[in-house]
Amino acid sequence: MSDAIDGVIERALDEIKFGPDGLVPAIAQQHDTGEVLMLAWMNREAVRLTLAEGRACYWSRGRRTLWRKGETSGQIQLLRELRLDCDGDALLLLVEQHGVACHTGRRSCFFRAWRNGGWAVIAEPEIDPAQLYPGQADPGDTDR
Amino acid sequence: MSDAIDGVIERALDEIKFGPDGLVPAIAQQHDTGEVLMLAWMNREAVRLTLAEGRACYWSRGRRTLWRKGETSGQIQLLRELRLDCDGDALLLLVEQHGVACHTGRRSCFFRAWRNGGWAVIAEPEIDPAQLYPGQADPGDTDR
Repeated sequence: MSDAIDGVIERALDEIKFGPDGLVPAIAQQHDTGEVLMLAWMNREAVRLTLAEGRACYWSRGRRTLWRKGETSGQIQLLRELRLDCDGDALLLLVEQHGVACHTGRRSCFFRAWRNGGWAVIAEPEIDPAQLYPGQADPGDTDR
Repeated sequence: MSDAIDGVIERALDEIKFGPDGLVPAIAQQHDTGEVLMLAWMNREAVRLTLAEGRACYWSRGRRTLWRKGETSGQIQLLRELRLDCDGDALLLLVEQHGVACHTGRRSCFFRAWRNGGWAVIAEPEIDPAQLYPGQADPGDTDR
């Protein structure tokens, strides 16, 4: 990109109010069905990369590194639209999710629902996590 | 509620992993259309009240107080379902939004979309904010 375009983008990124830790929460929503897939975190560089590459890149708080969603599992998220909220401190990504969003093999990470004073599992895995993360005994978290 | 029921609920609340500040991000989604309305924050007491009262109660980070959504504006959110994500550190509320969710008078807080290197406003107010917050020159943030 040219320096002029870079400057325009950087000024627009200035409107995002990152927290004291340099992060904002980012919601990923399937663009056509409206399903909320997951909530992850982004720093400025993750937003930049997501826009430049057209696929979701987050900041892994657990591993303290940039994390291109699907880099291990292949379950990438193509960006259809990036939205910013009124306060500038939350992002909404409309994405085209390839496969499943959750490290447990479920389509959405929000697969527990409050029922009668406790959490009930309301969705089953669509794929074995061992297939998503070959060679890993325990994928540990969603940051893959 | 009986002590036994309280105990069951408290153990279920233990599964929510609140951050160092005692908060988790909470997404509010219109239950039938799938529209993501806003992202706010909850502490343990806010979750408890939301479940007990059947309407969304958040923690206002700006005002450092519990905030029953709509207490000033009347734009309440009736809880249809509460969901928890795989890591236990994010909540999804399926709600029935009365009126608008955003303090700007728009239905959703996510009314800015990335277009050609900048943020474009993609939704107009449905109601004048002055009607939502009478007597306030500037509602300031979404925490009303």
